[in-house]
Amino acid sequence: MTTGSADTPPDELTVRRATGDDVPDIVAMLADDPLGAARENPADLGPYRAAFARIDEDPNQHLVVAALDGKTVGTLHLTVIPGLSRRGATRALIEAVRVHGDARGSGLGTRLIEWAVAEARRLGCVLVQLTSDATRIDAHRFYERLGFEASHLGFKMQLD
Amino acid sequence: MTTGSADTPPDELTVRRATGDDVPDIVAMLADDPLGAARENPADLGPYRAAFARIDEDPNQHLVVAALDGKTVGTLHLTVIPGLSRRGATRALIEAVRVHGDARGSGLGTRLIEWAVAEARRLGCVLVQLTSDATRIDAHRFYERLGFEASHLGFKMQLD
Repeated sequence: MTTGSADTPPDELTVRRATGDDVPDIVAMLADDPLGAARENPADLGPYRAAFARIDEDPNQHLVVAALDGKTVGTLHLTVIPGLSRRGATRALIEAVRVHGDARGSGLGTRLIEWAVAEARRLGCVLVQLTSDATRIDAHRFYERLGFEASHLGFKMQLD
Repeated sequence: MTTGSADTPPDELTVRRATGDDVPDIVAMLADDPLGAARENPADLGPYRAAFARIDEDPNQHLVVAALDGKTVGTLHLTVIPGLSRRGATRALIEAVRVHGDARGSGLGTRLIEWAVAEARRLGCVLVQLTSDATRIDAHRFYERLGFEASHLGFKMQLD
């Protein structure tokens, strides 16, 4: 994603399935965010490791990290959801998209979402969906540029 | 949900897991809707039956029907999604909520969503989420009355 001169090849971006060893890096990225800062607690990884085990054993969960020259620079979580509506459409839900602070503005977010859309297609999905907090105005423009339509309102209820 | 006199007990509403035999009734309800009419094709149940098989074999999918005196009057699809964000929160996604035309305005929608929220809690979810088409103004009021917050925009991309 960094720009090399004509003589040096660009750094290689790889998107791969997350392992348990990636949990601290992913949680750090989740927390390094205006909304995530209040929601996450990287000092206690226990609940995250338990959640990772649930994700890892479910074949419809695809938690990935993007790595650039061996450094983790992004993450997202794609879930494949079969359904009856829209003529039996299988959909993909994208959650927890983060780009490392050092890599923002580099086009990595675009690469990550493009990867997710291609992966969703490969997995047989005919619809990709995500929600974005109403306050993330820049993110809304970003998703619209990538071909998403802000056709819905997203409702949430916390069960505390 | 119907109102009986003081002497007749109210009809019994049951919410139960959908079986393959429920597919035609569910598809009919999906299609009997301003948006669903254009999206669904009840004349060809094949793709719906294939999708039902995928739903039925996945322990995180909970496709249910509501029955009143043996008649199917509602449906919704709840998906349990483990995740790392929000301290390893497991969330529930609600999709494909429909109330039969004969039962609308009876409070059945409220009963269905309240059932889904209770079921999500029972299944260990700490967050329930759904999206509603931006044109469904009545639905937005309905979800807000039930305690949901319209905190997000919902983005979708069709992969055709």
